[in-house]
Amino acid sequence: MKKVSCDVLVIGGGPAGGVCAVTAKMNYPEKEILVVREFEVQLVPCAIPYIFGETLGCSEKNVASCGMAAEMGISTMLGKIENVDVKKKLAYLDGHEISFDKLVFATGSRPFVHASLQQSLDLEGVFTIPKNKDLIDKAKAYIDKVNDIVVVGTGFIGIEMAMEFAESGKNVTVIGGSKNILKGAFDPDIAMEAEEILIKHGVNFIGEDRVTAVIDKNGDNIVNGVQLKSGKIVDAQAVILATGYKPNTDLAEEVGVSLGHYGGIWVDEYMRTENHDIFAVGDCSARRTFVASMPSKVMLASTSAAEGRVAGASLFGLKYMKGFNGTIAIFSTLIGDKAFSSAGITEVEAQAHNADVVVASFSGMNRHPATIPGAQKQTVKLIAVRNGGRIIGGQIIGGPETGEMINIIGMMIENQVTIYRAMSMQVATQPMLTSAPTSYPIIMAATMIAQQIESKR
Amino acid sequence: MKKVSCDVLVIGGGPAGGVCAVTAKMNYPEKEILVVREFEVQLVPCAIPYIFGETLGCSEKNVASCGMAAEMGISTMLGKIENVDVKKKLAYLDGHEISFDKLVFATGSRPFVHASLQQSLDLEGVFTIPKNKDLIDKAKAYIDKVNDIVVVGTGFIGIEMAMEFAESGKNVTVIGGSKNILKGAFDPDIAMEAEEILIKHGVNFIGEDRVTAVIDKNGDNIVNGVQLKSGKIVDAQAVILATGYKPNTDLAEEVGVSLGHYGGIWVDEYMRTENHDIFAVGDCSARRTFVASMPSKVMLASTSAAEGRVAGASLFGLKYMKGFNGTIAIFSTLIGDKAFSSAGITEVEAQAHNADVVVASFSGMNRHPATIPGAQKQTVKLIAVRNGGRIIGGQIIGGPETGEMINIIGMMIENQVTIYRAMSMQVATQPMLTSAPTSYPIIMAATMIAQQIESKR
Repeated sequence: MKKVSCDVLVIGGGPAGGVCAVTAKMNYPEKEILVVREFEVQLVPCAIPYIFGETLGCSEKNVASCGMAAEMGISTMLGKIENVDVKKKLAYLDGHEISFDKLVFATGSRPFVHASLQQSLDLEGVFTIPKNKDLIDKAKAYIDKVNDIVVVGTGFIGIEMAMEFAESGKNVTVIGGSKNILKGAFDPDIAMEAEEILIKHGVNFIGEDRVTAVIDKNGDNIVNGVQLKSGKIVDAQAVILATGYKPNTDLAEEVGVSLGHYGGIWVDEYMRTENHDIFAVGDCSARRTFVASMPSKVMLASTSAAEGRVAGASLFGLKYMKGFNGTIAIFSTLIGDKAFSSAGITEVEAQAHNADVVVASFSGMNRHPATIPGAQKQTVKLIAVRNGGRIIGGQIIGGPETGEMINIIGMMIENQVTIYRAMSMQVATQPMLTSAPTSYPIIMAATMIAQQIESKR
Repeated sequence: MKKVSCDVLVIGGGPAGGVCAVTAKMNYPEKEILVVREFEVQLVPCAIPYIFGETLGCSEKNVASCGMAAEMGISTMLGKIENVDVKKKLAYLDGHEISFDKLVFATGSRPFVHASLQQSLDLEGVFTIPKNKDLIDKAKAYIDKVNDIVVVGTGFIGIEMAMEFAESGKNVTVIGGSKNILKGAFDPDIAMEAEEILIKHGVNFIGEDRVTAVIDKNGDNIVNGVQLKSGKIVDAQAVILATGYKPNTDLAEEVGVSLGHYGGIWVDEYMRTENHDIFAVGDCSARRTFVASMPSKVMLASTSAAEGRVAGASLFGLKYMKGFNGTIAIFSTLIGDKAFSSAGITEVEAQAHNADVVVASFSGMNRHPATIPGAQKQTVKLIAVRNGGRIIGGQIIGGPETGEMINIIGMMIENQVTIYRAMSMQVATQPMLTSAPTSYPIIMAATMIAQQIESKR
């Protein structure tokens, strides 16, 4: 058995593992960092949908660069860690014994498929969307040859793929299991605008029904379509099960690391497990919401990267205090030429918490005057706590610029900004770039909330 | 003499006056608000440059809507207030005596021209850029017929106009008086990238020389060009003096309201003059910087609108505490297909303060992976105080989305966010909308600053 030694062993080379390794090296340049990852080529996870349409067109255009890590002197090994001796601080991989001081699980997530549909995965033409180039290439090659596609699931991956298929001229049907798409991130009033665009681009959308079975009519092990709860059948030569992901925790469990809710590895706010020599970052870790520290199913590369940064700096002691506890679930996507984004909690979620919130939406234009070529509508919805006016959620519809605008609301949530502060916030406004200074939508929505609070007193 | 009575008299209907009136009506619905403005048609100030090129093409496309004020029951009178009796709370306008309880000066600014060039304003073909539709229309009609144009001044208005002229195929020369353009908002490293684009689009740029005289070679009262300090002559059939603006305070001075530095009306943080029944908002008020509360020459419609909101809510008592003191000087503009934006203090300004700051720049792409169609470079420069790491300035170059990204940095400055908090900030990232989560440039620049601070300890 070959002996390898390092100070920090990171298992996984996705966004969480990669950022953790780089941050660790920046903070502790004298330490040996070793990243073990399964695949030679690492895909950019959130751009996988764009491989399937004309936006990228192939997985080769969606490869994450690992150049920085190598340049910084971070070592890499390919393969799968088979076992870890937590007490002796040894890991085993393909005839190698790797000694470490600190261990980071960054083992990511894998597609989740409901038990009732798991058998269908054996059929030709049924796919999940794992973060694995070979499997994605296989799916893409198959789907390229067919015309009728069913996407099961209305999350970001499902909707983005459906739009790519529709834009390529395919007949695509999205089947939801929930009345509105992108549930969790958006309230129905916002989601409905996204659905309109989806439908206008030719996507068939079946919201309230759900798939009960995947059909192999001829018994030849090739998919023919799906059966819905209503009895309806949708024909398809390819079925994509985009029904979420679950944490990859097999190895962690095997070696005795405790899990939190929803099966993620339990961690504190600095991504430390109960054993402070063992960390977990990214989708494999158990996340919490920021309102009530409840378990959260949110899986986002940006959250993973933030966790990687926190862990990387905290490996040998808490160097910086973390800015914010819990995940603010900050999302964005582009549907047609409209960006949809969300941060914090939705109105629906606030109601589920029985939180006393006040909500307002303001619509204006994203350029000023509205005659500027290419000007589009921009809608900002804000959610604030009645007492004190702290902003705890926001959703935006607008041009591509709103992909960054949501990060202003994210900053507000993280820094406990109230609507009263927001009302006098200073913003850069410019005719070709933003809305008018007189009707900047975040400020307008904050002002409307203040009015509502006052009028009900 | 006709008698008119109101509770709040706002003099001026630009962004500051308009927003102040609307905010006042929202906060005090029972009060009578009267806005007196000079012009029937109010231009959107920051879009005036786009009238001169193909972006808007005419002033009719750049008219500010006053619909909201009318709908809310705010009254308007056209004309110029001739006098105010501050003690008796009476204002006089064209045979009307207007009684008021609270008075708001929102009299704006007018073009500033150096004494040495003021005589040239009598020549045909020499223009300033006032916020006055008739004068703008006159300038536009004249300039449309000529080919060679000199723009004196390298501020936002001058640069934006020069780009519009160049895009319309005219021969335009910008003459600076300072080595770099957009001085004050940008450090030379950032400004130089803007200059490259300017030049690439065909604008002639003369930085370090300056105009000493405007030439009327034939003595026919028609401009022929400008004479530079170096002796050089630049021929032109039209000369635009875009050399800044100064507060319009004639009336305020006449009626005995005290001025602050640079001639603006002195106000406290709630836009109250020494007399708490009299307020001043917008360009006519004396602004302060946020670092040292020094007088500030910054004139921005967005700052004016923020002031209008603060004053509007504070007319009959301080209803909300203001979020932030001083102006953070938050700017953006589009030059070619690149947006340039800035907030807080520049590196140059920090040096002038002898402030112990640490600076870092990070360049990445505004989409991820970089193969996403239309992806552009994005550069973020951050300026933080060494001790404690508080972020006090930022500059961005990138796609149109950076027009909103600078508002994230604005939020950070206003909320005293440190680089240590920024390092673990949660951001929404999406392939089609933003940079990669693993290299979000604000976070990367913050991390680089943290490294620099640590390495020099």
